[in-house]
Amino acid sequence: MKTLTVELGDRSYPIYIGTDLLSDPALISPHLTGQQILIVTNVTVGPLYLEKVQSALRGFEVQSLELPDGEQYKNLDTLNLIYDQLLTSRFDRQCTLVALGGGVVGDITGFAAATYQRGVNFIQIPTTLLAQVDSSVGGKTGVNHALGKNMIGAFYQPRCVIADTQTLNTLDDRQLSAGIAEVIKYGLIGDSEFYQWLENNMTALLRRDPQALAYAIERSCQDKADVVAADEKESGVRALLNLGHTFGHAIEAGMGYGSWLHGEAVATGMLMAADVSQRCGWISQDEVQRLENLLRQAHLPVRAPQQLTAERFLEIMAVDKKVKQGRINLVLLKNIGQAVISADYDPALLRATLEQHPSSA
Amino acid sequence: MKTLTVELGDRSYPIYIGTDLLSDPALISPHLTGQQILIVTNVTVGPLYLEKVQSALRGFEVQSLELPDGEQYKNLDTLNLIYDQLLTSRFDRQCTLVALGGGVVGDITGFAAATYQRGVNFIQIPTTLLAQVDSSVGGKTGVNHALGKNMIGAFYQPRCVIADTQTLNTLDDRQLSAGIAEVIKYGLIGDSEFYQWLENNMTALLRRDPQALAYAIERSCQDKADVVAADEKESGVRALLNLGHTFGHAIEAGMGYGSWLHGEAVATGMLMAADVSQRCGWISQDEVQRLENLLRQAHLPVRAPQQLTAERFLEIMAVDKKVKQGRINLVLLKNIGQAVISADYDPALLRATLEQHPSSA
Repeated sequence: MKTLTVELGDRSYPIYIGTDLLSDPALISPHLTGQQILIVTNVTVGPLYLEKVQSALRGFEVQSLELPDGEQYKNLDTLNLIYDQLLTSRFDRQCTLVALGGGVVGDITGFAAATYQRGVNFIQIPTTLLAQVDSSVGGKTGVNHALGKNMIGAFYQPRCVIADTQTLNTLDDRQLSAGIAEVIKYGLIGDSEFYQWLENNMTALLRRDPQALAYAIERSCQDKADVVAADEKESGVRALLNLGHTFGHAIEAGMGYGSWLHGEAVATGMLMAADVSQRCGWISQDEVQRLENLLRQAHLPVRAPQQLTAERFLEIMAVDKKVKQGRINLVLLKNIGQAVISADYDPALLRATLEQHPSSA
Repeated sequence: MKTLTVELGDRSYPIYIGTDLLSDPALISPHLTGQQILIVTNVTVGPLYLEKVQSALRGFEVQSLELPDGEQYKNLDTLNLIYDQLLTSRFDRQCTLVALGGGVVGDITGFAAATYQRGVNFIQIPTTLLAQVDSSVGGKTGVNHALGKNMIGAFYQPRCVIADTQTLNTLDDRQLSAGIAEVIKYGLIGDSEFYQWLENNMTALLRRDPQALAYAIERSCQDKADVVAADEKESGVRALLNLGHTFGHAIEAGMGYGSWLHGEAVATGMLMAADVSQRCGWISQDEVQRLENLLRQAHLPVRAPQQLTAERFLEIMAVDKKVKQGRINLVLLKNIGQAVISADYDPALLRATLEQHPSSA
């Protein structure tokens, strides 16, 4: 097992990465504050792993809640199911919420922990590759609103994260690929060496080689932790982690949440960001092609849906959090492994990408 | 005008206390982060003061939202009205939310600011005495849940607080008295000199003498700010500020939110806490009587409603946040001006207060 620490002063916390971690009481128990524990999971993950986690928590007052599965349930109504159970069961301020599942379960449970009685203890057990490399690091929690993704939320750090690579064996191929999209993102943003490693080891990742997975998770978490430690509340450099997300969110929102997986939308979004960057003259056509090849190798979509017009894209992107005083800030690429945040591009180039990208498939 | 600073490191903020402050652009504008401003108020306060605040914000993109008036609307549905307007109007992360109103408007607007896009700028303009001395200091924000008061929320500090004593001229007598209940609380907790001042100046406060009001607001805010600075997240000493609140919340919840004013419930709750303290042998019957006299002088209720049985009280109190591992923590009095947090009392004495208090009127 490897332990990686996210350095955030008095909110620092460990990420444990390895196999056979779920049922280990020694890992989780030092991070509990009281006797009352609510494990929040969903109808897909619960039947697979809930018992294991419960076995690590013998002797505590443990309850569980299975949410419906899917991004479309990441909303205030589902959040209220958690509040209802906590209040009906009289959970107090010393209770712990454990998120057992993917990014949706983690985000919504984290936000419940951030806001129940103005904040209670929170532990993440991410069971998808996406959640292990992304949502579990950085403390972003929240829910979607009908008018925008992740529009309601809080920054709230977990007490610890337990990433068990064995849980990835039950992940379907599409979910695995979606997670790899975020892994590729870390290479692209600031770690060209890791990007090359991914080009050489994509086959091993796709066949779920445990060592390749553990390495990719650890390196991604480390890359992300470095960025988050430098900028916890996303006032500057942290926004680089949104590479591909402004386009990606527009795809998710435009197609209806749940139609595209988040990682799939981010994959296509990253290629669109690369396309704008190439039009700006910052990276070469070859580098765009190299990224497209890597995404295709990972079985990720590389073209935006035909039915999303440039106008619709711009409309949705304008509601996105990355807008500052009316200008759409984009994360663009100066190089493979060097992302920048910029609103200093010719809007016509963005429009060209939005208009030509879908039809170039 | 007096300026008082709540010392919280990089979250420190000023409280401005005086007259004619609402329409002064010089006070508010240094605390704005972007162009977009949403003033959240209610149907009672809006018609009285909204124009004044708008006049201080000329040149900005200002919108307003009038919520229904009353504690019964401090819930997730009303919160959603704020999110809806922010998203429909495409407010970005640089926007500012201004709470113009009493504690309900402040709490709900503060929670919207804490959670919209994971946190935006927030300014408080409290227009009731209760909000000026209590809700505006300390960063507690949140909404009620059908199963408990203030069960959903966050700690979130405003950028500044503007307390204009002129707004108290339109406050009805019952609301003024409810505010005075919290003022008395600060004396009772840790400022016996102020408690004596209140005994000598209650008549001036009730006739809304501006100087007496300004003094009471300043001293209350200072007393509270000192406690909050020592314990922002309420892990210790800050819980003293809950004197009377565990009983008070039970009265509010038991009678249905909106039936008793918060300050009225706290007044009766403080006397009940004093009664338990006297039964513990910590304060004298004379001191309990002295408090009852002061509360009566302020036209505050001093007896719990007959229809709330001891069983019902205990049932509601058990869901309260002040419960640690199943034991009801109470704020009790060792003296006038010296409160303590304790779960170390004979439960029979609490029961005696609950059973005998209502019928002793």
